[in-house]
Amino acid sequence: MKASDSPAFPHVVVLGAGFGGLTFAQRLPSSLARVTVVDRQNHHLFQPLLYQVATAGLAAPDIAQPIRSILRRKPNLNVLMAEVQAIDLAARKVILDRGELGYDYLILSLGGRTGYFGHPDWERHAPGLKSLDDALRIRRTVLLAFERAETETDPARRIQLMTIVVVGGGPTGVELAGTFAELAHTVLRRDFEHIDPTRAHVILIEAGSRVLAAFPPELSASAQRQLARLGVDVRTGTLVKDIRDGEVELSTGTVRVANVIWAAGVEAHPLTRTLGLETDRAGRLKVAPDLSLPGHPEVFALGDLVSLVDRKGVTVPGIAPAAMQMGAHAANLLVREIRAGDRNRPRAAFTYWDKGNMATIGRSAAVAQIGRLQFSGWPAWAAWLSVHLIFLVGFRNKLSVFLQWLYSYLTYKRGARIITGLDERDWPVPPRA
Amino acid sequence: MKASDSPAFPHVVVLGAGFGGLTFAQRLPSSLARVTVVDRQNHHLFQPLLYQVATAGLAAPDIAQPIRSILRRKPNLNVLMAEVQAIDLAARKVILDRGELGYDYLILSLGGRTGYFGHPDWERHAPGLKSLDDALRIRRTVLLAFERAETETDPARRIQLMTIVVVGGGPTGVELAGTFAELAHTVLRRDFEHIDPTRAHVILIEAGSRVLAAFPPELSASAQRQLARLGVDVRTGTLVKDIRDGEVELSTGTVRVANVIWAAGVEAHPLTRTLGLETDRAGRLKVAPDLSLPGHPEVFALGDLVSLVDRKGVTVPGIAPAAMQMGAHAANLLVREIRAGDRNRPRAAFTYWDKGNMATIGRSAAVAQIGRLQFSGWPAWAAWLSVHLIFLVGFRNKLSVFLQWLYSYLTYKRGARIITGLDERDWPVPPRA
Repeated sequence: MKASDSPAFPHVVVLGAGFGGLTFAQRLPSSLARVTVVDRQNHHLFQPLLYQVATAGLAAPDIAQPIRSILRRKPNLNVLMAEVQAIDLAARKVILDRGELGYDYLILSLGGRTGYFGHPDWERHAPGLKSLDDALRIRRTVLLAFERAETETDPARRIQLMTIVVVGGGPTGVELAGTFAELAHTVLRRDFEHIDPTRAHVILIEAGSRVLAAFPPELSASAQRQLARLGVDVRTGTLVKDIRDGEVELSTGTVRVANVIWAAGVEAHPLTRTLGLETDRAGRLKVAPDLSLPGHPEVFALGDLVSLVDRKGVTVPGIAPAAMQMGAHAANLLVREIRAGDRNRPRAAFTYWDKGNMATIGRSAAVAQIGRLQFSGWPAWAAWLSVHLIFLVGFRNKLSVFLQWLYSYLTYKRGARIITGLDERDWPVPPRA
Repeated sequence: MKASDSPAFPHVVVLGAGFGGLTFAQRLPSSLARVTVVDRQNHHLFQPLLYQVATAGLAAPDIAQPIRSILRRKPNLNVLMAEVQAIDLAARKVILDRGELGYDYLILSLGGRTGYFGHPDWERHAPGLKSLDDALRIRRTVLLAFERAETETDPARRIQLMTIVVVGGGPTGVELAGTFAELAHTVLRRDFEHIDPTRAHVILIEAGSRVLAAFPPELSASAQRQLARLGVDVRTGTLVKDIRDGEVELSTGTVRVANVIWAAGVEAHPLTRTLGLETDRAGRLKVAPDLSLPGHPEVFALGDLVSLVDRKGVTVPGIAPAAMQMGAHAANLLVREIRAGDRNRPRAAFTYWDKGNMATIGRSAAVAQIGRLQFSGWPAWAAWLSVHLIFLVGFRNKLSVFLQWLYSYLTYKRGARIITGLDERDWPVPPRA
């Protein structure tokens, strides 16, 4: 008897243990199905705080938890650290770098990648921020550039080394630009002899007319004022034409810069384009209202893989709460379906519940929108801190992050100003010219 | 006028901000000299806890502090992140990867490297543990091997992946073997479906007749019993003949193993052999009783660079307290000499003050010797924890490490079970065969 002939105790394969996949795996009762969770990393990553690892505020283990640890109490659940190479929807199987997995139900939650709008060569000069390795690389690049500036005698090169360009005025770009400005202007201020880090130039590039376009215009304006107060040079309506070794060509001219960070685009995992299904320009799958793939009710897609306007007409955003809600929705559907023993039951459509939107900018600087309520500055910052502490996975991580924040707040220092990976050879050191 | 003609306010160059160099820089008053501290890393590393980063107990930033932060309050002191390429004793200058530095006094505190007794090709298969990058690499290799074992179907390969060989029965080897055994037998125990981590095989290889040869024989015997209780297979009187991809050839036979860690030898920084002075087999410099180089009273060598029998006939060991005492000794000599304005004053000889010796093995397992007092087990472990917390640099690090230890003690978990650097390409993944 094939596994798929056994609807009473099906095999569910979950690809990716981000917010969507992990929520699904936690919500599906072990008594109803055998579950295999596959991820290429050994850890679940709390992405909303990733920029703080890149900006030397937090250590990598503070925002990551082993997937095995999180799910250890679930019987009938198996975690595999493996890379997905292909998905065969017709044969209902997944091909991994080691072996294959047949499934009765498949949860696609592979997440997003940094997208360069058709310029993959820019990645070399402008790393994105999606993984812990990305964050550690950005931290290394920027901290090294300041060290290089300290011994640089050519004034033009020194300015180049002390310039940081962040491309993209969404929440990640705003967080990175604000925090790097703060790092240079307060944390590093007294630590150098030959350079003055307060003269570091942090530029935030946004193609649209305002930063944080997903927020109401008043909050965008507030964020822009708060960024300016931290010393960020915000340039809206500015396009990136080219990124080369040591310089960025903008629609308004060329900037010589040693540190470029790309926060402008997210694409769905490239496997979405291999399924023979309709995707949008960013590779996101058009799914049915219940989140299943058209023609494949046994396959659900979640999170950053999905392009969806929900039944209330809301475009579901690519953020952690939306992915978690999708994971819970798919789990609830499967619970009813498996319990009923009927695969042809009508399924409820997914509805996104907008709990609000927040972005942090720096010390006591943030914007927040909850329902019709809008606020910014210190109250928004306090709300942001609380919400992120509450949702961070694991008691150890909550405590550690809370203490690091308290430490940084009281001392104006950063606990993770450590350069590692100097001997790794796959990434160039900041260019000197 | 050359700088060296100005004995009233000399330029002192310190190469290396380990325990010796840092202590020297902290002790020398800023009013007496201009100081330049050079290090290839941006951080001072608390080496005694490095094995806990390798074994997933601590995060890298917990045991490291930016050198600039530690020394920020010292006027007339400059920190350079640079690599030393050559030392010209005759011309009194140091050649760095960027530029040169003339000096009036030179402090050589470049520290040690892992030594392979004439087999540099073994490094590829058996990394040593001297830097944060080494520690993160060992953590990645071992955690990945367990993940590979989980999907491995060949029983022989599975055993190979779950075997860890630690070469060298000194304190580092004992700490690594004990902690890896604990990691496998308690932490990972419930996390896998297909493998039983309690069957992991941790082998500690020692060429001599007992582990911890620097301790009294009774404590070596106690350490060996405590290691056996944790499940470590201790093999004394065993020589390593060869290390190849996936196996270690011992004098007693060949072991198939995916994880080999080299804790058997430390050599002085290779620059010591370029000075035209006498060194021992490990490249350590024979220094005068005052720690200066023979014929060069303006140059002092500290810590792991030095081979010295002090005036009481004690061979000074290559441990942190000895390096710190040497740094303080050199600083005190210079203070007197600069204040007196007389370079020909007779100098005091260095005397090592043996404060005792400790090694930890695992949870509630350690050995300690303080004067004639010898103890082991829980009291030695508590003493070890306290001493290391007290000497760890920085309040943030003390608090963070204390909380991580408390967490691990209470939960039997490890807070840093995170694999990073998967995409770095300079290190091979564990061999499959």
